[in-house]
Amino acid sequence: MNDAETSVAELRAVVERFVAERDWQQFHTPKNLSMSLSVEVAELMEHFQWRTPEESAAIAQAPELLTEVAHEMADVACYLLALSSSLGVDLSSAIEAKMVLNRKKYPAEKSSGQWAPPKA
Amino acid sequence: MNDAETSVAELRAVVERFVAERDWQQFHTPKNLSMSLSVEVAELMEHFQWRTPEESAAIAQAPELLTEVAHEMADVACYLLALSSSLGVDLSSAIEAKMVLNRKKYPAEKSSGQWAPPKA
Amino acid sequence: MNDAETSVAELRAVVERFVAERDWQQFHTPKNLSMSLSVEVAELMEHFQWRTPEESAAIAQAPELLTEVAHEMADVACYLLALSSSLGVDLSSAIEAKMVLNRKKYPAEKSSGQWAPPKA
Amino acid sequence: MNDAETSVAELRAVVERFVAERDWQQFHTPKNLSMSLSVEVAELMEHFQWRTPEESAAIAQAPELLTEVAHEMADVACYLLALSSSLGVDLSSAIEAKMVLNRKKYPAEKSSGQWAPPKA
Repeated sequence: MNDAETSVAELRAVVERFVAERDWQQFHTPKNLSMSLSVEVAELMEHFQWRTPEESAAIAQAPELLTEVAHEMADVACYLLALSSSLGVDLSSAIEAKMVLNRKKYPAEKSSGQWAPPKA
Repeated sequence: MNDAETSVAELRAVVERFVAERDWQQFHTPKNLSMSLSVEVAELMEHFQWRTPEESAAIAQAPELLTEVAHEMADVACYLLALSSSLGVDLSSAIEAKMVLNRKKYPAEKSSGQWAPPKA
Repeated sequence: MNDAETSVAELRAVVERFVAERDWQQFHTPKNLSMSLSVEVAELMEHFQWRTPEESAAIAQAPELLTEVAHEMADVACYLLALSSSLGVDLSSAIEAKMVLNRKKYPAEKSSGQWAPPKA
Repeated sequence: MNDAETSVAELRAVVERFVAERDWQQFHTPKNLSMSLSVEVAELMEHFQWRTPEESAAIAQAPELLTEVAHEMADVACYLLALSSSLGVDLSSAIEAKMVLNRKKYPAEKSSGQWAPPKA
C-alpha cells in the first residue's frame, strides 16, 4: 500500500478486519477509542519530548528512528480510522468541511507567518 | 471528497496547500506537530470525558454533536498528515508495516475478546 | 512522607534534588515538561482505556494494580512539580486563585449534578 | 495558601469540597478523571506548542501569560488531587515510593546530562 494509490476507505477496511478478527468491536466505543488515540499520540510524542525542534526534524534522515516514529504514527492513524468506523464518520468529507471553517478563521493574508495564541 | 474516492496523498495535498498559503511550514517541526496532535486529540476527548461509554456511542445518532466530533477528528487527521509531510512518512505503508507487527503481537486466536493490560 | 504532613514545597524539593543530581535542568524547559506531563498522563490513562468506569473504580480495591496506578500518578505529580520549579509558579496559590474563577464559572446551585459540555 | 505552608491533604480537601458542593462525585470515576487530566494537560501544552523551548522558558518573566499558564497548572493539579481522592492514593507516599524506583532506573552517575530514549 502507498498513499498515492490507497483510499481512506481501503485503510479503514484493513483496520476493521483486524478488529473484527479479534472480536474487539465490543471495546471500541468512541470514549475508549479517544483514550487510545491519546495514548498512541503520547507514544509518538515520547520520541520528541527531550529533542530540540531541530533534532526532531533531523529524524527524517535517521532511518531506524524514523521507522519507530512511523510505527507510532500508524497506531495513531489506526485508532482514528477505528473511531471513524465506530461513529460512521467519513474522514475525507469531515476534513473538507473543517477546511472551510479553517480558511475563514485563519485568512491567508492575515495569518501569514503568524500563529494564534490559545483563547484565555 | 469522500473516503471511497480520496487517496491519502490527496488529503495530504489539501493540508500542505493550506499550510503553505499561510507560510506555516516554519512552525511545523515534528516536535511541535506532535504537541498539536495531542492538543487536538484532547479537544476530541473532551466530548467523551463525562459521557458513559454508551452515551459516547449514541453520538453517532445525534447529528449536531456528531458534526462537532467530526470537526475535531478532522483536526487530528490534518495534524497527522502535516507530520507525515514534515517527516516524509508514507502513512499507508507505515500502516501496512505496523499491521504485520500487530498480527504477531496479538494473534487472532489468542486475543479474541481480550484486551492486553499495559506493561508494568 | 504522607499527604497530611508533607507540604507542596517539600515535595518540590524532592524533585528538584533528583533533577539536579542528574544535571537534567538543561532539558526542563516548560515546553519539554508539558510534553512529559502529557506522556505520563497517557501512561496513567492506559490503565483505564479498556476498563469500564465501574472497573476503573474497582482498582481502589486491587492492591497490585493500585500500586501501578499510584506510580503513574507520582510521575504526573513530579513533572507538574518540575514545571512549577521551572516557571517559578506556586501551585497552592495558583489553585486558590483558580478556585475563585471556578466558583464563578460553576455556581454550586446551577451546576449541581450537571457537567458542562465543551465549547463548540 | 502557599506551597511552603500548605500540605497536600489541605489542597485535596479544597478540591473535595468543591466537588461535593456540586454533587460531582458521581462523574469522578478514575477513568473519567484520567481523561480530564489529559484534557487539562493539553490546555497547558497549548501555550507551548508553537513557542521554541527558549520562548517557553521566557514565560516566567511575562506576568500575564504566566497567570494563564498557572491557571492551567492548577487545573491539572486539581484533577490529580481528585483522582487521588477517588482511588484513595496518598500522593506523597506514592512519590516517595516512585523515587526509589527512579533512583535505581536512573543512577545519578550514569544519567548525568543524558536523557533516555523511549523503549522501542
